[in-house]
Amino acid sequence: MSWIITETRQLDEKASDRLGNKFLVGNGYIGYRGTLEEHAKERKTATIAAGLYDQAGEGLWREPVNLPNGGFLELVYQGRPLRAHAGPVEEHSQSLDLRHAVHERMTVFTAEDGNRITLRAKRFVSATRRHLFCAQYVVETSRDCELIIHTGIDGDVWDLNGPHLRDFITAVDDPLISISARTGEKGIPVSVCEYFVCPGRNHVFLTEERRILREFLLQTRAGQPYTLVKFAAIHTGVDTPDPPAAGRSLCWEAIRTGFDALLKDHRQYWEARWTDCDLQILGDSRAQLALRFSLYHLLAIAPVETDTVSIPARGLSGQVYKGGIFWDTEIFMLPFFAHEFPEIARNLLMYRFRTLEGARRKAREYGYRGAFYAWESQDTGDDACTLYNITDIHTGRPMRTYFRDKQIHISADIPYAIGEYFSITGDDSLLLEGGAEVVYECARFFLSYLHYSPDRKQYEFLDVTGPDEYHERVHNNAYTNWMAAHTFALCLRVAAHLQKHHPAPAKALLQKLGFRKDLEAIRKTVRKIYQPAADPRTSVIPQFDGYLQLEDPPLAELLRLRSDPREYLGGGNGLASNTQILKQADVILALCLFPERFARETVSANWEYYEPRTEQGSSLSACSYSIAAAGIGKLAEAYEFFMTAASLDLDGDPKQYVGPLYIGGTHPAASGGAWMAAVSGLCGIRWSGKLLTIDPRLPAPWSEVRLPLLIRGDRLQIVITRKDVTLRPMQPLQHKVRVRIRRKVRTLPRQGTLTVEYGAPEWRS
Amino acid sequence: MSWIITETRQLDEKASDRLGNKFLVGNGYIGYRGTLEEHAKERKTATIAAGLYDQAGEGLWREPVNLPNGGFLELVYQGRPLRAHAGPVEEHSQSLDLRHAVHERMTVFTAEDGNRITLRAKRFVSATRRHLFCAQYVVETSRDCELIIHTGIDGDVWDLNGPHLRDFITAVDDPLISISARTGEKGIPVSVCEYFVCPGRNHVFLTEERRILREFLLQTRAGQPYTLVKFAAIHTGVDTPDPPAAGRSLCWEAIRTGFDALLKDHRQYWEARWTDCDLQILGDSRAQLALRFSLYHLLAIAPVETDTVSIPARGLSGQVYKGGIFWDTEIFMLPFFAHEFPEIARNLLMYRFRTLEGARRKAREYGYRGAFYAWESQDTGDDACTLYNITDIHTGRPMRTYFRDKQIHISADIPYAIGEYFSITGDDSLLLEGGAEVVYECARFFLSYLHYSPDRKQYEFLDVTGPDEYHERVHNNAYTNWMAAHTFALCLRVAAHLQKHHPAPAKALLQKLGFRKDLEAIRKTVRKIYQPAADPRTSVIPQFDGYLQLEDPPLAELLRLRSDPREYLGGGNGLASNTQILKQADVILALCLFPERFARETVSANWEYYEPRTEQGSSLSACSYSIAAAGIGKLAEAYEFFMTAASLDLDGDPKQYVGPLYIGGTHPAASGGAWMAAVSGLCGIRWSGKLLTIDPRLPAPWSEVRLPLLIRGDRLQIVITRKDVTLRPMQPLQHKVRVRIRRKVRTLPRQGTLTVEYGAPEWRS
Repeated sequence: MSWIITETRQLDEKASDRLGNKFLVGNGYIGYRGTLEEHAKERKTATIAAGLYDQAGEGLWREPVNLPNGGFLELVYQGRPLRAHAGPVEEHSQSLDLRHAVHERMTVFTAEDGNRITLRAKRFVSATRRHLFCAQYVVETSRDCELIIHTGIDGDVWDLNGPHLRDFITAVDDPLISISARTGEKGIPVSVCEYFVCPGRNHVFLTEERRILREFLLQTRAGQPYTLVKFAAIHTGVDTPDPPAAGRSLCWEAIRTGFDALLKDHRQYWEARWTDCDLQILGDSRAQLALRFSLYHLLAIAPVETDTVSIPARGLSGQVYKGGIFWDTEIFMLPFFAHEFPEIARNLLMYRFRTLEGARRKAREYGYRGAFYAWESQDTGDDACTLYNITDIHTGRPMRTYFRDKQIHISADIPYAIGEYFSITGDDSLLLEGGAEVVYECARFFLSYLHYSPDRKQYEFLDVTGPDEYHERVHNNAYTNWMAAHTFALCLRVAAHLQKHHPAPAKALLQKLGFRKDLEAIRKTVRKIYQPAADPRTSVIPQFDGYLQLEDPPLAELLRLRSDPREYLGGGNGLASNTQILKQADVILALCLFPERFARETVSANWEYYEPRTEQGSSLSACSYSIAAAGIGKLAEAYEFFMTAASLDLDGDPKQYVGPLYIGGTHPAASGGAWMAAVSGLCGIRWSGKLLTIDPRLPAPWSEVRLPLLIRGDRLQIVITRKDVTLRPMQPLQHKVRVRIRRKVRTLPRQGTLTVEYGAPEWRS
Repeated sequence: MSWIITETRQLDEKASDRLGNKFLVGNGYIGYRGTLEEHAKERKTATIAAGLYDQAGEGLWREPVNLPNGGFLELVYQGRPLRAHAGPVEEHSQSLDLRHAVHERMTVFTAEDGNRITLRAKRFVSATRRHLFCAQYVVETSRDCELIIHTGIDGDVWDLNGPHLRDFITAVDDPLISISARTGEKGIPVSVCEYFVCPGRNHVFLTEERRILREFLLQTRAGQPYTLVKFAAIHTGVDTPDPPAAGRSLCWEAIRTGFDALLKDHRQYWEARWTDCDLQILGDSRAQLALRFSLYHLLAIAPVETDTVSIPARGLSGQVYKGGIFWDTEIFMLPFFAHEFPEIARNLLMYRFRTLEGARRKAREYGYRGAFYAWESQDTGDDACTLYNITDIHTGRPMRTYFRDKQIHISADIPYAIGEYFSITGDDSLLLEGGAEVVYECARFFLSYLHYSPDRKQYEFLDVTGPDEYHERVHNNAYTNWMAAHTFALCLRVAAHLQKHHPAPAKALLQKLGFRKDLEAIRKTVRKIYQPAADPRTSVIPQFDGYLQLEDPPLAELLRLRSDPREYLGGGNGLASNTQILKQADVILALCLFPERFARETVSANWEYYEPRTEQGSSLSACSYSIAAAGIGKLAEAYEFFMTAASLDLDGDPKQYVGPLYIGGTHPAASGGAWMAAVSGLCGIRWSGKLLTIDPRLPAPWSEVRLPLLIRGDRLQIVITRKDVTLRPMQPLQHKVRVRIRRKVRTLPRQGTLTVEYGAPEWRS
């Protein structure tokens, strides 16, 4: 059925780092890493609450706070703690039910005396009570024996740039125990409150400064299962005025409701989510599992109940990349949400409006106007990205990078996503409630950034870094120029739309922002923006000015020059910096974002040119190569890149280090990219704002694909077989939907189904 | 009398590298390093002919050709060669008579048997026969003995990126011997032809592939001096169609003329040169010697008879910096020549016209119009500077530098010098014969380089490297912007001048270059060029956009971070690159070049700000700090920086390595800078084109300064005592000269003298 992932591998530290990501449970508020019950900070346990950040001191970067671990539980037999990674273990498995977001583990420990002690544990972070962690344990021994159970809250946490908590208070309020503390920088209170029920006796409280445990003595009978239950309530001052009180109250609610009822609620919620978004792939269970795994991870970290946070680049899997929200969210995750859960897409975009002041501050800091969004955005929208974002492995010195200063495309990526959201959902309330202001301020930023070359008679964007971070501080990066031009065009469209449909707020906004003159300037500028075009001879679009004149070594040869596999290839003296070797899709991504602009020949020429030169050193890259490959008939490559994106955290091998810095975690942008590759790439589905195009290119093993898709509020069920496409509105259509299959445009019936045979993909014709 | 420099130091290799520079003899065509007679390539012997370059192969840079050494001579006693650096030596000295450009050495070797063998050698490269090397040796022994003399031509030469010569032919045409060869790249023939006269007998020819020596057996009587004479004629295909024939013919001419007559001609020539330019400092023999040493080195390498070469950054002292001509010549050497030897200044500038095509090619290569002059210019004007001009000591990898790409100020430095030449000499024939074309093409280059910021309503120069090479790829470098704006202004002035005084050639030139439209554009642009101004609060002028926001560590602290004293501080990941630490004067230099623009307070504020932040890592830097210091009353500092510039190659400690690369050699820009510091700085002499200002700030020990100065063809003798200034035209004035001393402007009498008391320097008032 392709819903369960299981892992029985040996648990060395590196594997356990990865499993912590792979088996993460989350509910959009809490991310709880898929470590084992007995793990502590050495194994990178983490409980991350969305939106809580702290800076541990001058010179250290701000990052998410790893909260005390309420899920700790350890069995002790004959004075020896039982730990799966330390063995001896007869059997061990970890699994995750993607459909219900429930993690299970089972380990049979073998003691020296031959006693076999089995621990089964089940955990979830509740989707219906988002501050609640729930777990159930079943313990069984093969002999009558005495087992000690240590369980409670472990506040001695793993940190990259910590410690973040101070003023610890461990408290016992039987049957509850708790740890409260405050963040170092802003003194935000946090609390984890735990309830545990055990048939054991003699329970004792063990408290240290940052840890509070209960010790139970469980007298077991051979072959008799004993069930234990734990609830842990997790609160921070970001969401709750009095976290300890809220924790106690939630624990009592959980006690009253009971584990089974809580699990039932949780399962129902998740089943409903899947009904709305499950993309079924018939005939290819590996692809099916990988894609579901990807969507699971998106659903597990997406903010449902708030629009003050967005999805960080490493989701809620830890502190990596400072818990920063990057362009990943808008470009690689938003399409999925806009088409399946527009309310989440809206939250993600409203987060950008909530952090607009931070973007304005950043623009001012650099001497520009408007909104220069953070490369790594946290709670305030100020940029968490440091100027020295990488450590040079040769010298151990911080290396100056220009991610923060020069990746100005972030201020075009966000408007692009706002445009997509509006186009897909038809919902202009986002524009009225902040979206238009974001678009205007981003356009204004570009207006203040650009320069006119009187000699070339065009506006240019100089000194930027495009998506390919190995080439910093380039001129006229194609992606950046196109996207900035798109921001201008969108700005004009939004202004026209508001003027027509909401004249009063439209006027008020222009007035509030003093934007009329800028709008005029944008109108005059937009047509003269230099948008690098394909070379008429080769059809190759240069990634930036002079790119094609750079050295052009084969990728493998360049990689051989590294002194260390962790060596960063970009930066001031990077091995790739002065060559045509790319970290990730740049031009190819742009081709995917503006599909209507480029002839198939152009896409083809650029794919062939850039693919061998791309290190695929970013998890964002594969999906673009997949989508573009699908569009030009490279089906095997399209499939392979899709699988790369979808399987990255499942069984892939993503980079764990850049220089000496740990960068592991989940890769939600790859997950979102996998959905894009499946839908836009392999299924060939594209919504232009007016027309739904379906040009399927199903890979060989796929006999059928079924997916639900929301278009302007109308939910369609789309079924693609190897010969036809069937569309069925789930409710009577509210809007007219025009569909283009095999060059013929049809209007979807308000109810009922439309089936169209498509034959070979269009690119074959 | 402060004319002789002497050195008796131990000759370890490092010392000998320096002495090779310090004791160089030259005549503008040949530079012959101040090594000893017995030295070979290990001790960096070199014979450099101006204008001859060769590239030894793909991937190696082009550099001057080190010609076979015709000055080789070695004594052998009892089977042991006598080498001063290998000892034992009882007495040793090397000296250089700056006034006559004659090098002498004296060594008393002590043999194991107690015999003391004295070698005195005298050498010069003739100023009246520029292809001729002349030497005279006197040998004396304290006992009767048998001495072997090896002398001849050593073609096994020191090379940085060689070998450059192939097809060696060693020939004997008694009494002449010769080595002929061809350069590798272009097959240019070279020849060294030698004549030697010795009272010894049994002379034998020893030939190897690249060496031809004669062996003489000299039977000496105790205490009896024996005199030997050598002539070596040096020719290359650059100047002579048949170098071997020219060599033979010149040797025969030398033989006929005789050593004494040749020396007499040579000495007379040099005495006349000194009459024209000697700046006498009374009361400070140390300063006097250092300045004469500096002027000697300028005179020894200045092209007198050709305008197809200019002065390389390391003069004729070897192959360092590829024998490239940098902006050093125009900015730091030209003022001396324009005021003392305008015909040499003219040659230097005509060289830029001769290489204009190379500059045009470089502009086209980078997508610009006009003339983008080479950062390191050789015979064709194409840029010899490599993209990877430094080796990273941490990785041993070539480091990408942007000297070649981004130091666009070179195309403003040359026009600046042309403007100065015209202003100082009043000679507009240079403009008509190529100078105007250079200025126009440089202005055109800047026109094609600049960008307009609609937001800031100004033209900007983005992505440039200013004089301070530690900060590459900056925006709006103050020096660059001011200089480019000056190029525009000069371009308009030149156009107006030609239009008025030479309408026909003016029109023809505009037509030939198709320059009318550009001229119009320049007229419109010039006033809107952003010229970074002093902060009204602090009076500090930011070196470039964002400079003042960079990290600001104390220089000493930064230097302590180096892993190796040879570590380069700039480049991609340089320690200084992201700090306010400068390599060399940048804003301060600009203040010196535009003295009329800035109030004393501004100069003062910037001097105080930048001086502690300047590493003085370039030999170009000290003179600017001296001139600026003199103008703001920091006399001690002005003097100290003057002495630093003047003494650099005399007894200074200039950098010998950047990374693993040898960069030693002479520093003619420091020599030129020393003259500027003495004249513009300490004497306070400034010619604006209309007015001669003299505002003396003589340092304490200087009782009087006397200097000749040419202004528009009128030679003045200026005498500055501690109380007054006396001006005396050497011939009746051809032009009216107005002089400003102590704020009062006077007109110089056509004949006779003018004496004005000046009292305290103006900045005290």
